[in-house]
Amino acid sequence: MTNTNLQKELAALIGSDKVITDPLELKYYSYDSSFEAKLHRFNPDAVVMPKSTEDVSKVMKYAYENNIPVTPRGGGSGETCGSVATQGGIVMDLSPWDTIDEVDMANMQVFVRPGVIHGKLNDHLSEFALFFPPDPGSTRMATIGGMVANNSSGLRAVKYGATENYVLGLEVVLPNGDVIYTGGKNSRAVKSVSGMNITKLMVGSEGTLGIITQVRLRVWPKPKARGIALAIFPNLDDAPATVLDVYQSGILPSGIEILDDSAIKAVNLYSPELNLPDAQAILLFEVDGNPASVDWEGARIAEICKKRASEVEWATDPARMTALWKARSVTATAAARVRPDGSRIFAGEDISVPLSKVTEVLRRIKALGEKYGIKVVNYGHIGDGNVHTAPVIDPECEAEVAQVQKLTDEIHLLAIELGGSTTGEHGVGLVRAKYAYLEHGPAVDTMKTIKKALDPKGIMNPGKLFLMEEDSNA
Amino acid sequence: MTNTNLQKELAALIGSDKVITDPLELKYYSYDSSFEAKLHRFNPDAVVMPKSTEDVSKVMKYAYENNIPVTPRGGGSGETCGSVATQGGIVMDLSPWDTIDEVDMANMQVFVRPGVIHGKLNDHLSEFALFFPPDPGSTRMATIGGMVANNSSGLRAVKYGATENYVLGLEVVLPNGDVIYTGGKNSRAVKSVSGMNITKLMVGSEGTLGIITQVRLRVWPKPKARGIALAIFPNLDDAPATVLDVYQSGILPSGIEILDDSAIKAVNLYSPELNLPDAQAILLFEVDGNPASVDWEGARIAEICKKRASEVEWATDPARMTALWKARSVTATAAARVRPDGSRIFAGEDISVPLSKVTEVLRRIKALGEKYGIKVVNYGHIGDGNVHTAPVIDPECEAEVAQVQKLTDEIHLLAIELGGSTTGEHGVGLVRAKYAYLEHGPAVDTMKTIKKALDPKGIMNPGKLFLMEEDSNA
Repeated sequence: MTNTNLQKELAALIGSDKVITDPLELKYYSYDSSFEAKLHRFNPDAVVMPKSTEDVSKVMKYAYENNIPVTPRGGGSGETCGSVATQGGIVMDLSPWDTIDEVDMANMQVFVRPGVIHGKLNDHLSEFALFFPPDPGSTRMATIGGMVANNSSGLRAVKYGATENYVLGLEVVLPNGDVIYTGGKNSRAVKSVSGMNITKLMVGSEGTLGIITQVRLRVWPKPKARGIALAIFPNLDDAPATVLDVYQSGILPSGIEILDDSAIKAVNLYSPELNLPDAQAILLFEVDGNPASVDWEGARIAEICKKRASEVEWATDPARMTALWKARSVTATAAARVRPDGSRIFAGEDISVPLSKVTEVLRRIKALGEKYGIKVVNYGHIGDGNVHTAPVIDPECEAEVAQVQKLTDEIHLLAIELGGSTTGEHGVGLVRAKYAYLEHGPAVDTMKTIKKALDPKGIMNPGKLFLMEEDSNA
Repeated sequence: MTNTNLQKELAALIGSDKVITDPLELKYYSYDSSFEAKLHRFNPDAVVMPKSTEDVSKVMKYAYENNIPVTPRGGGSGETCGSVATQGGIVMDLSPWDTIDEVDMANMQVFVRPGVIHGKLNDHLSEFALFFPPDPGSTRMATIGGMVANNSSGLRAVKYGATENYVLGLEVVLPNGDVIYTGGKNSRAVKSVSGMNITKLMVGSEGTLGIITQVRLRVWPKPKARGIALAIFPNLDDAPATVLDVYQSGILPSGIEILDDSAIKAVNLYSPELNLPDAQAILLFEVDGNPASVDWEGARIAEICKKRASEVEWATDPARMTALWKARSVTATAAARVRPDGSRIFAGEDISVPLSKVTEVLRRIKALGEKYGIKVVNYGHIGDGNVHTAPVIDPECEAEVAQVQKLTDEIHLLAIELGGSTTGEHGVGLVRAKYAYLEHGPAVDTMKTIKKALDPKGIMNPGKLFLMEEDSNA
């Protein structure tokens, strides 16, 4: 079938206003925020923008009958080609379907459609003194559907966990178009152990098992206070040792971030007014809770940091907190400044290692950068070992592109070698699928068994999470 | 095959010291702590007590080849016949395999074998200033393997969630004897989104998908302080309204318990020295955290309670906390005192409803009790709507047994009608399997698809969670 015919048939199903036909508009769907999608564009055959469960069901029934791959997409902020139709077919853009159906304050939960933007949801919830704790850096782009599909998190995962901890139920359209509601079909319970836990199976399945059309999220009372501590460490090894001491003192901060010397250098080039000292590591702690708790924990964290840090500052004043946090908030942008013609790329960029291996991984990534002649800027969520490594290259230079691919491959392998994970929060998508067996061993066969059972025709976002036998020939 | 032959073959596989043959000892495995198992004993054909993954794998391979059902069992503290061989076959008693393999303090996690008792694990972890937050009432009986299989929790779930929030990885022996490790085969990462989330699929699957042989748990810094508030409410409706006000003030207590008038009466009969006032509800709040936080939250909770309560007391002194909590800690035992010849039975005993429906459910359960002429004592975890209803009957009286079965059936149906769940924390097992479609609708078919894919011969704990086609003929 030609793309034009496919588009016509889809328009007949759900309405021409929900089907994109303009070739220029279609191009927007050929990439996400990953480096891989900068190297290879993947053009979909058609893009639909459903606005109801019925729309989604109709498209899935049609795709199922005609063996057409379907790739669901939210904000397109992913770094893994997860929402890109790498094997063609239909992209289902759920971002326009962005209704907050209900804030059920009495039951501390919210019902949303998949396209609701994370930041907008939390803006709305704050009117009810509630919040949804996971906090991706892409808060102004990421959709709740995408967050559920990727089990997203961010810097507060160390205290609050990832999206999965908050998903009470999901409406899911299955590959054949059937609709189920997980977690109880009419439930508003916040606690239930009834039935097999397919809610959590769907969370993080990256669109490979079905399309999420409604999310029932548990939300929490919004903390009234927060504070920030910044500590500067002449020696890298003192940073994780300090984190462990904070845990041992009974404190679980809402965020613990690290900038190593590469990130400090980048930030000083980008924001020279910050004038960060020449140190091996900066730690930033965020604590939240009630005002008394925040003061108590801030004082204790400062005291613990002083054992090893050359400078420590603790703040609860909003302006001063913003100033202290600025080193961290500009890092992702600043990274590219480590060379004049540099671009920061998203590849091998969110490995996770045990806390006990953080210094080793930072040192070995530095050595790998030197081996391949590529600068790498390191920062991230040290509290749970989730390190962001930002290679900075000239993406127009083919030789550098070839080198950085070897480098990021080694970074992924290093994470596995050190007892970590190839991805702490961004997901697998296309780009980490090849590491599945190395990281998970025979458990991948169990995943494949489930995939085949729930998606027997293999039409749901094929080629993501792990390689099926047919993908290697694709 | 006779039972004797089966036992001989199993002894040949894993050693006769790991196979129970004494008929009296076998009887111990014919029941759990449920009322159902008091009415019907289910004798297994054989019981094995494996002590290694290899043992488990050998037994599963054998069972798979010979189509023999296998029912895993931990402490036997379940209330649903979940660990009882309701269709015969082999019971696999994992409780003797109780090694804490490693406390990895640097990475805030612990590796345990399935038989480790919850209370013993937390005793051990406290030496490292760590704790595993879920807290079942059966802490001195329940095993970690059983807790994972049932996604157990307890009164602190309102703040800390259920067991699933802490499971980082699992070693699982599949029905055919193959062994997988979920969450990364050599991982000590605390944060990972790599691969399909089969870890969480296994949590709460009640032994229907495989045998859990090792658990990798995330543990948390142990809070340094706690406090208890007790508030007495002349009007039942004021109890959930107060809970909601506490949430709105930004506080998430570690426990919020209710005793309604039926429970107050029972406690006064059992512990007259407590002399609880004649009220419609008592609320107990537990808060934990750092000392400053606990003081702040305690003062605020007391202030909020005073708006509606006739009496409020807040305590952080250990002896006084124990005294205040005593009304709650004796309730389960006290329930039977509401009639001289009464026994409290575990049936329909842990429904969960939305917080907004708590008063309605308590009133309607009282009316149902009157309809069937059975006293019901109500208490439980109001913070997340998880209500314990304790019918008190003479279990030797056939007429009462018949009536209580109708009553508990109506309690389960009422929970579903009110947008709740048939089970907040005890699980489905045999006794709630019949409500699966009513509670979950077509999602049950998805559960069955997964069950058939992972356990094609249907030998893993058959008849639990939901009824397969073949179960109705069993």
